[in-house]
Amino acid sequence: MKKYDCIVIGTGPAGQKAAIQAAKLGKSVAIIEKNNVLGGAQVNTGTIPSKALREAVLHLTGANRKGMFGQSYRIKQDVAMSDLASLSQQVMRREWDIIRSQFDRNGVELIWGKAKFTGPNTVEIDSPDGMQSLEGDKFLVAVGTRPAKPPHIPFNGHSIVTSDELLKLDKIPKTMIVVGGGVIGSEYATILATLGVRVTLVEGRSDVLGFLDHEITGAFQYFMRQKGITLRLGEKVDSIAEVDSTASGSKQRLVEAQLESGKTLRAETLLFAVGRQGVCGALGLDQVGIEYDDRERLHVNEHYQTNVEHVYAAGDVIGFPALASTSMEQGRRAVCHAFGVCDVRNYNTELFPFGIYAVPEISMVGHTEEELTREGIPYEAGIAQYREIARCQLLGDEQGMLKMLIHQETHKLLGVHIIGTGATELVHIGQAVMALGGTAEFFVDNVFNFPTLAECYKVAAYNGLNKLNHV
Amino acid sequence: MKKYDCIVIGTGPAGQKAAIQAAKLGKSVAIIEKNNVLGGAQVNTGTIPSKALREAVLHLTGANRKGMFGQSYRIKQDVAMSDLASLSQQVMRREWDIIRSQFDRNGVELIWGKAKFTGPNTVEIDSPDGMQSLEGDKFLVAVGTRPAKPPHIPFNGHSIVTSDELLKLDKIPKTMIVVGGGVIGSEYATILATLGVRVTLVEGRSDVLGFLDHEITGAFQYFMRQKGITLRLGEKVDSIAEVDSTASGSKQRLVEAQLESGKTLRAETLLFAVGRQGVCGALGLDQVGIEYDDRERLHVNEHYQTNVEHVYAAGDVIGFPALASTSMEQGRRAVCHAFGVCDVRNYNTELFPFGIYAVPEISMVGHTEEELTREGIPYEAGIAQYREIARCQLLGDEQGMLKMLIHQETHKLLGVHIIGTGATELVHIGQAVMALGGTAEFFVDNVFNFPTLAECYKVAAYNGLNKLNHV
Repeated sequence: MKKYDCIVIGTGPAGQKAAIQAAKLGKSVAIIEKNNVLGGAQVNTGTIPSKALREAVLHLTGANRKGMFGQSYRIKQDVAMSDLASLSQQVMRREWDIIRSQFDRNGVELIWGKAKFTGPNTVEIDSPDGMQSLEGDKFLVAVGTRPAKPPHIPFNGHSIVTSDELLKLDKIPKTMIVVGGGVIGSEYATILATLGVRVTLVEGRSDVLGFLDHEITGAFQYFMRQKGITLRLGEKVDSIAEVDSTASGSKQRLVEAQLESGKTLRAETLLFAVGRQGVCGALGLDQVGIEYDDRERLHVNEHYQTNVEHVYAAGDVIGFPALASTSMEQGRRAVCHAFGVCDVRNYNTELFPFGIYAVPEISMVGHTEEELTREGIPYEAGIAQYREIARCQLLGDEQGMLKMLIHQETHKLLGVHIIGTGATELVHIGQAVMALGGTAEFFVDNVFNFPTLAECYKVAAYNGLNKLNHV
Repeated sequence: MKKYDCIVIGTGPAGQKAAIQAAKLGKSVAIIEKNNVLGGAQVNTGTIPSKALREAVLHLTGANRKGMFGQSYRIKQDVAMSDLASLSQQVMRREWDIIRSQFDRNGVELIWGKAKFTGPNTVEIDSPDGMQSLEGDKFLVAVGTRPAKPPHIPFNGHSIVTSDELLKLDKIPKTMIVVGGGVIGSEYATILATLGVRVTLVEGRSDVLGFLDHEITGAFQYFMRQKGITLRLGEKVDSIAEVDSTASGSKQRLVEAQLESGKTLRAETLLFAVGRQGVCGALGLDQVGIEYDDRERLHVNEHYQTNVEHVYAAGDVIGFPALASTSMEQGRRAVCHAFGVCDVRNYNTELFPFGIYAVPEISMVGHTEEELTREGIPYEAGIAQYREIARCQLLGDEQGMLKMLIHQETHKLLGVHIIGTGATELVHIGQAVMALGGTAEFFVDNVFNFPTLAECYKVAAYNGLNKLNHV
């Protein structure tokens, strides 16, 4: 039986970075992939395809250039799904190559097949070429999640779908119901609305993206409605079914969602985007004595160890925050701990950013106003409106804003919240300043390139510090 | 005679920020503008118009989306100059409003007219409404520069032009000679080449943008040539004249440039972009005893004082680096010193970034490899190629790169050099880390949003630190 220092299950962001890290530490590493493509949900069904769709939609509809060429500007009146899928395919193929070559370069052995524990240190791989068993010293489970598919919803792959199937639709629907106002639901709702799809979004809580700073959520919901999205907040879906409709004159097959409040919604398509579900059940974890919860997710300690100490887990399978960015870091840290490498410094593990690739883009790092108020930390908010910034006028984004939260006494940065063009990039400047203990005065003194979005930081710092002058 | 604590001459970036700063300190402030528009070269002839042109060209030609839709993709085959000028006009009008309202809000008195010193503390304003005299306690001269126009060059405003006239051309020429490979020459050469203009660039030194890190210059020159630009480096122009040509069959008026090396260049248009010239001569500075050099530029000390201590100068009029961004900060610092406000911290005055809005974009902060080698500071370079980064694939930029220079012993960041999409924004992350004393390890430990350009920092840090492992 072939023996490895480290066996990684899953080639998504957590698995990739873990395998590379172990190889760089001089360990023998095998990584196992059960699908016929590399990269997990990140590359194949989630992060990359949705971002590719977003880029293509923004460009082809000219939505990011309306300020430049007027509201009626639109490059392609009829955008076909095939226009949108090709960019995605192109980027996916490139990503597969990159992952493959990283494995090759670092001597990571890639094994295709389904892994199943047969003992504490052995896994069996069921591959197209037959079965094989491997022995490992340390394990990392990074098998990810898939969209939850509750049994009472009649998913059919063409009109009632999860995010995995959305990009495979053969045409763009005229109308759509999105169930769930989390990251996935909000991203797709705004991207599709930008394409001209009439979207109704149903969310059980009182706001979409409830973990964000409320001012940002408020602005985002305003923009959603401006884009023609109907928000049904604080509403739950009771049942979903396909129905025949003659309302439009000709007979048509539609999806109907009954809300608990009694409302009936109908649309050509329904995207169900409530929760994701683990896929641990098939791993034979009982052979090792590892427990998972009812959504098939694993619980780990601060070193990413499961209840069996030589088996680690990282990425979506361990739950929040389930971001590609954090998963990569978890994978790397898990392996560093497994092999007793202590050079992983901890000064900014809490400062991971959130990036939401909706239209408009949103990003945050650090605390929200609500958290600080709850914790009794005195702060002031400094705000820059994009419309005051030359770069934003050049880009035609007059709606965005950057908010920084400044400690009232120390002037240290407590949080950065951005909605608008470039938010996911821009947030890293504030993140670096927070991580390195800088204050709002840093931005006042700093010289920024002109014209840039980054100038928002200077304007916001002035705004916040001017308010503090009166305290 | 009306009396002010502070009189500012010129409403460009330096003048604006100086006037606002003085007003915020509770001083009475007048600001004088001799043109009939606000904002100086930044808003009206230089920074904003060239960036607006760049945005419009990139978008209308699809140059920033070639990776997404293939090399032959092009939105508008025939781009008219009017398409390009309208965005510029729109942004300029907006900027005028913003400057005007900032002055109003802060109680800065705006006076239209030509200022001339009549004594150490008095200026006379020649305005459309007549003459008036003002008395001032402190003065800031921020009158900027204009493109140099050597007398032996037959400028005519339509085929032999400076950058001030370029955007007023009534059509886009097929061919162009650009004399000067500094920032202005390089920006316009690459923007126009992107539009399909056949450009020949003549530069007296051995490289364009000679102050940049040589690896970046090398890449930039490679990209210029790939775009069809002919570079004539280490060549000087001997004479320039309009000539009649029948070479293309029909008779045509062309511009001919004779190089000292004997070569003859011909094109429809010639852009002369060598140096800028001060405009101090008309200010009556002799009345105050202020000296200026033969290019009409003022010399100042570290507090931005001229040789007459109550008269300060800032912005392009004092020469290097002559960037909108640095000018703003100079204006603010000059006023803070003039009124004895010492809260201007100095920790990062040296860390101003350079932003070059060419195609592709370039930005740098800190030291170049050449400087560090010359100064005997041991460093290692960490490089990220854009093509390895998912975000860059989504944007279709496969050519860019980010290089960070890391101190071999302390691992502190010594410089960041970027060529590619978003360079002018991205550089600020490195700048913050440098200013706050961070090391390359910061980037390794940091969690970046995925997918973003900012990930380049992590990849480059790994690359650099891996190389250092062998030392």
